Amino acid sequence: MPGPYSNVVYSEREAINAVWVLVSTAMIFFMQAGFALLECGSVRAKNSTSILIKNLFDACVGSIAFWLVGYGFAFGDVKSFIGGSPDYFASSGFENTPEDHYLLWIFHFAFASTSATIVSGSLAERTQLNSYIMFSFLQTGFIYPVVVAWTWGGGWLQQRGFHDFAGVTTIHLVGGCAGFCGAAILGERYGKEKDREAKQREGEMNRRQSVNFDNSHHYQKVINHVNKDYHQAFKEWLVNQSDEFRPHNQTYVVTGTLILWVAWLFFNGGSTNNLFVPRANGPAKIIMNTVISGSAGGVVAVFVKARLLGTYSFVNRYDCGALCNGALIGLVSITGCCDRVEPWAAFIIGCIGALFYVAGCKILDMLHVDDPVEAAPVHFFGGVWGTLATGFFDNQNGLFYDSPTKGQYFGYQILAIVCVIAWVGTTSSLFFYTMKRLGLLRIDKAIEIIGLDIAEMGGVGEEIYEKMRRDFGSSIASPRSMTRPNINTAENVSKVQSDDI
Amino acid sequence: MPGPYSNVVYSEREAINAVWVLVSTAMIFFMQAGFALLECGSVRAKNSTSILIKNLFDACVGSIAFWLVGYGFAFGDVKSFIGGSPDYFASSGFENTPEDHYLLWIFHFAFASTSATIVSGSLAERTQLNSYIMFSFLQTGFIYPVVVAWTWGGGWLQQRGFHDFAGVTTIHLVGGCAGFCGAAILGERYGKEKDREAKQREGEMNRRQSVNFDNSHHYQKVINHVNKDYHQAFKEWLVNQSDEFRPHNQTYVVTGTLILWVAWLFFNGGSTNNLFVPRANGPAKIIMNTVISGSAGGVVAVFVKARLLGTYSFVNRYDCGALCNGALIGLVSITGCCDRVEPWAAFIIGCIGALFYVAGCKILDMLHVDDPVEAAPVHFFGGVWGTLATGFFDNQNGLFYDSPTKGQYFGYQILAIVCVIAWVGTTSSLFFYTMKRLGLLRIDKAIEIIGLDIAEMGGVGEEIYEKMRRDFGSSIASPRSMTRPNINTAENVSKVQSDDI
Amino acid sequence: MPGPYSNVVYSEREAINAVWVLVSTAMIFFMQAGFALLECGSVRAKNSTSILIKNLFDACVGSIAFWLVGYGFAFGDVKSFIGGSPDYFASSGFENTPEDHYLLWIFHFAFASTSATIVSGSLAERTQLNSYIMFSFLQTGFIYPVVVAWTWGGGWLQQRGFHDFAGVTTIHLVGGCAGFCGAAILGERYGKEKDREAKQREGEMNRRQSVNFDNSHHYQKVINHVNKDYHQAFKEWLVNQSDEFRPHNQTYVVTGTLILWVAWLFFNGGSTNNLFVPRANGPAKIIMNTVISGSAGGVVAVFVKARLLGTYSFVNRYDCGALCNGALIGLVSITGCCDRVEPWAAFIIGCIGALFYVAGCKILDMLHVDDPVEAAPVHFFGGVWGTLATGFFDNQNGLFYDSPTKGQYFGYQILAIVCVIAWVGTTSSLFFYTMKRLGLLRIDKAIEIIGLDIAEMGGVGEEIYEKMRRDFGSSIASPRSMTRPNINTAENVSKVQSDDI
Repeated sequence: MPGPYSNVVYSEREAINAVWVLVSTAMIFFMQAGFALLECGSVRAKNSTSILIKNLFDACVGSIAFWLVGYGFAFGDVKSFIGGSPDYFASSGFENTPEDHYLLWIFHFAFASTSATIVSGSLAERTQLNSYIMFSFLQTGFIYPVVVAWTWGGGWLQQRGFHDFAGVTTIHLVGGCAGFCGAAILGERYGKEKDREAKQREGEMNRRQSVNFDNSHHYQKVINHVNKDYHQAFKEWLVNQSDEFRPHNQTYVVTGTLILWVAWLFFNGGSTNNLFVPRANGPAKIIMNTVISGSAGGVVAVFVKARLLGTYSFVNRYDCGALCNGALIGLVSITGCCDRVEPWAAFIIGCIGALFYVAGCKILDMLHVDDPVEAAPVHFFGGVWGTLATGFFDNQNGLFYDSPTKGQYFGYQILAIVCVIAWVGTTSSLFFYTMKRLGLLRIDKAIEIIGLDIAEMGGVGEEIYEKMRRDFGSSIASPRSMTRPNINTAENVSKVQSDDI
Repeated sequence: MPGPYSNVVYSEREAINAVWVLVSTAMIFFMQAGFALLECGSVRAKNSTSILIKNLFDACVGSIAFWLVGYGFAFGDVKSFIGGSPDYFASSGFENTPEDHYLLWIFHFAFASTSATIVSGSLAERTQLNSYIMFSFLQTGFIYPVVVAWTWGGGWLQQRGFHDFAGVTTIHLVGGCAGFCGAAILGERYGKEKDREAKQREGEMNRRQSVNFDNSHHYQKVINHVNKDYHQAFKEWLVNQSDEFRPHNQTYVVTGTLILWVAWLFFNGGSTNNLFVPRANGPAKIIMNTVISGSAGGVVAVFVKARLLGTYSFVNRYDCGALCNGALIGLVSITGCCDRVEPWAAFIIGCIGALFYVAGCKILDMLHVDDPVEAAPVHFFGGVWGTLATGFFDNQNGLFYDSPTKGQYFGYQILAIVCVIAWVGTTSSLFFYTMKRLGLLRIDKAIEIIGLDIAEMGGVGEEIYEKMRRDFGSSIASPRSMTRPNINTAENVSKVQSDDI
Repeated sequence: MPGPYSNVVYSEREAINAVWVLVSTAMIFFMQAGFALLECGSVRAKNSTSILIKNLFDACVGSIAFWLVGYGFAFGDVKSFIGGSPDYFASSGFENTPEDHYLLWIFHFAFASTSATIVSGSLAERTQLNSYIMFSFLQTGFIYPVVVAWTWGGGWLQQRGFHDFAGVTTIHLVGGCAGFCGAAILGERYGKEKDREAKQREGEMNRRQSVNFDNSHHYQKVINHVNKDYHQAFKEWLVNQSDEFRPHNQTYVVTGTLILWVAWLFFNGGSTNNLFVPRANGPAKIIMNTVISGSAGGVVAVFVKARLLGTYSFVNRYDCGALCNGALIGLVSITGCCDRVEPWAAFIIGCIGALFYVAGCKILDMLHVDDPVEAAPVHFFGGVWGTLATGFFDNQNGLFYDSPTKGQYFGYQILAIVCVIAWVGTTSSLFFYTMKRLGLLRIDKAIEIIGLDIAEMGGVGEEIYEKMRRDFGSSIASPRSMTRPNINTAENVSKVQSDDI
């Protein structure tokens, strides 16, 4: 909408900063690809498309929510708790202000969609898609923007000197906390509990012996789409499906982690929004701190996680997933204070971050909160530690330095953690709990066992017969092969078998 | 080649703009990876390497063609239809002009290779590689540059006020139109027709009963490379191969889409070439429009496509591919006018774009034009809509605004669509039809059934035996296992089977 | 650590250059993802996680090594051979100097980690991880920094006019040479020798007949983790495993290559560190040269490699891997002189580079040096050619131009090749040989056959039973399926089989 500032042109200084912010914005948006790959690789293959579509919805729904309402709540003349100036909703008055809100919008949109995407990981493999889309809108349109209003939009925390440079509290703690609440309310994935019990006893047990498919409405609806001749075979195949809870593709996990790492250099470095800052707080030092903290987190996590959690064995000596998530928590931990710490502090922050990650995994396991991609250990526990680390290592106001107000500063960091958890925990739990009561939160048990890709994403078809053939061998034929061309099958098979023996 | 401007150095303003263009160039080139992943994931696994190599050739051959001739045709002192100044061919006089043509070349090369890559998707799974390489040279060396001469190089359309900001007509309509013509002339993939008929009748039919491999020259040449003992088994296996027409890897599709989306922010934002423009037309607003239009397209497409095309069912409720292609057509649609529309218009443009995409799929299906990756629906139909949308929503000259010349402006948008389709349709059809007559366009039917990866890309070998073993179970042995080590096989197998029952 | 320059702020010119370097840094770091995908796709599936973790360690360990010691050796007031000023170690005095060493550190760290990652490819599939981590530290902390001191840090080569613009000698020759030495000392992958012999004789032979698993300590340790009922089946399955030496996923290879290509535009373009250079040596021309050389290399390699090496056949007409590695050696070859050559020279340099790549493959094969990802042919042979090419085509001092000192200039290029090979060859061989003598270099033969992912990375579990089921068909059941739900198995199977026949 044209306004008095429609024809304003950047000064050279502004243009230099704008290039930096524009590039950073696009690269932060690239995190969507990183999260999609990381989460897709971490879940079971049978739910891989379902997690990908959630990541795409985060970007699509998030941008619309943040455009219509989120940005207004976050930056619309915030007095203390929330903004509301009409110029900021649906970008209606972006040409009425001296500040370039288009530039700020795209930058903060990239952040907002990240905050929503973190949650998708914790809820993976068992959440109804419609329900998730609603949450995604709520998160980017309301829950997250309110926290932004407090910390960056001029609200009460910012007024009191609270420091969160690039979003450890505002983004990672918010995303991780919502994910934690969602995962707790959703409950564990089907089979997790039995799996845990089985590990505690000798031998193995059949997790599925209690499944009675015949009584399941949704199972029947799925089986109706399977070729009639194979209903029995489908049941049989289904029951024999492997259901181990482990990442199905490490290449996706590692590539996703590296994309996130690259994007994080812009996430933190770009948050200066300005090249003309003192060298001690400039983007180059910020990126250096980010690299060092991530590296430290990765190295510590890969060596301590298996040992501390007791999963170390001769055949499980190196845990690639722990290295990835360790690097990520190192990156999370440094996000809040990367502009005000020395590289040695970044190293220590990353190392301690890895311990928070391991502790997070342990605590979630004890609480029976099932987070398939370990998003809560990384972002929730990392968010807490990163906010605390700012209180300790900030070279202007931290506890380890001499500042008259350092106690007060540390206090506000702690208060921020408490208030953010209270706000996000309450609102997101309210949403998830309401959905649960309405029966809209969790998918049907039968669908969970079948896998979302087959049950909802169009995976029934030739693909499923192929899988059945692979797992059962030649005893299940393709419907198409029933009328075969003029090659004498029996003859061939016997010929091949005689070669074989 | 040294010239009078060899030692010219940027001013500060020029340097700021150069950084923006340099970064945008590299990120637009990154689209090659996006298209490669999108197309590879969308085709059947047996042709995946073949589509990848086409994408690589687009980059390699495209750069050489655009360097030698393409850039000269596009920008070499264009009078009206085509350029020809010798300074612009093979970069021979880039140091003779005040303008920095090195910078323009790399930026426009990234665009040119995109225009060729779009075509590879429409021709996937059935085109001879040599023929495709020739087309790629022709496209980046001649067909596309001529359109650039008209729209950006100072030619007749640009002289008349035609507006195509970042290439909706020049790149996407050109690429999509060439792809459409190629797909139409190539014909459907083998089995598509039977597949369509089968869907219309009760039950299933064997699409392959008419295949008589024994008379196929190419089939014999492939089978010669298969271990002699397995000739019969190979035939048998081949006939039983699944041949469903569906994307073989959704993770590649989604990752490719997200890479394209990120690159598109630079594609559109970078097309300013200049940071010093009014805020209402600046890169930040452009990127905001791009994000919103892509999001709108994705959301609309995923909810309407299956319903409008009648493919919606209980097990096919969410179509991840429709979301991806919907987002892409949203991005295509906004490309032409992103510098002159308001965000609300971007939202509408994206939504309508999704309808054009669905209509495109339907029309191609009705015309029996087989486009494996839906490149024509996205880029051809999106190209048409995007060019029209500029005529409607352009806030300087569009039909929805008050401008005395808006009728004329809209007319030139339509004329551009007509002329570009005429030009690209004629030249590309001429090429494809000539190749078809010469028998150089389409691969042999036997190779199409076998799959290009096995038949041409070195896939015969242990890999194929492994596939045969997987699909047929243990009845086909590896040649290597014939002389087995001293483990008594029969004993093991019987032991295992007794465990099993 | 605060110092006299802590509060220094960039001038506008400095800020413009800083944006360019900051973005380039992050995108060069993105090469880690490119190398990870390229290498992962090129090895056998059973070792894919193991190569991914090595790439992650390169980034993590490399950053810490380069921070603590590497940067100091490379840039710490180098007199001639090596630096040592304490300000440069552990970034302790980065705020004491007028130059912004934070910016230089991040840029050169991205380079250093690349140099280490190249090596991981050559050592793939058979190196102990602990040993590799130590080498990675040594490489980024000492071997590579010393060469940097010579060429960029002000050392003896730089003082004598040696030119290596973006690191063809300093990075690629160093990485490739270390990889070559490591691969030679490690020896070939198990089965390579037999494979080569088998190719020379009629028919096939069983490479594994000499394996006596029962005497292998490590094999027993792995089998202890396999469910007891399946020990025999595991042995049987293992022996039947396909072991062909070919890339397991071309999509990863191609995506990795394209990521590397994009990053290379920043690698070379960003090495100006400065936008205010004459047009004839500026980043736009550099990027143009880089694109053209890479394209030329790819096209030549794909057409000549199979023909020159005699692997061309009807079913192996297009070698996607050769196109990728050809493009990469084109990019390597132009890296040293891209700021001082004309585009036509870039084209020639890329074409000749492809021949060096093919020669490298042939020579390695003759020497029985086994480089699974062809890193040595690309980076070692490409490094040699790129350094020579600078001597030939440099338009200021090259042999093909008129300069009084061109003979001397060419001599120093050759001397650099000799000295770098001597330095890297000696130090890396010393390391690898010592490790070999200590039994720490190579993994146990049994583990190599089993595959690192199963033997070390936690791959034993349901995953292995699933693989066994797939390869052997239904004759091996999942332990979990032993107590099946109330579906009468025998009945189903017979029913399905009767459908089948």
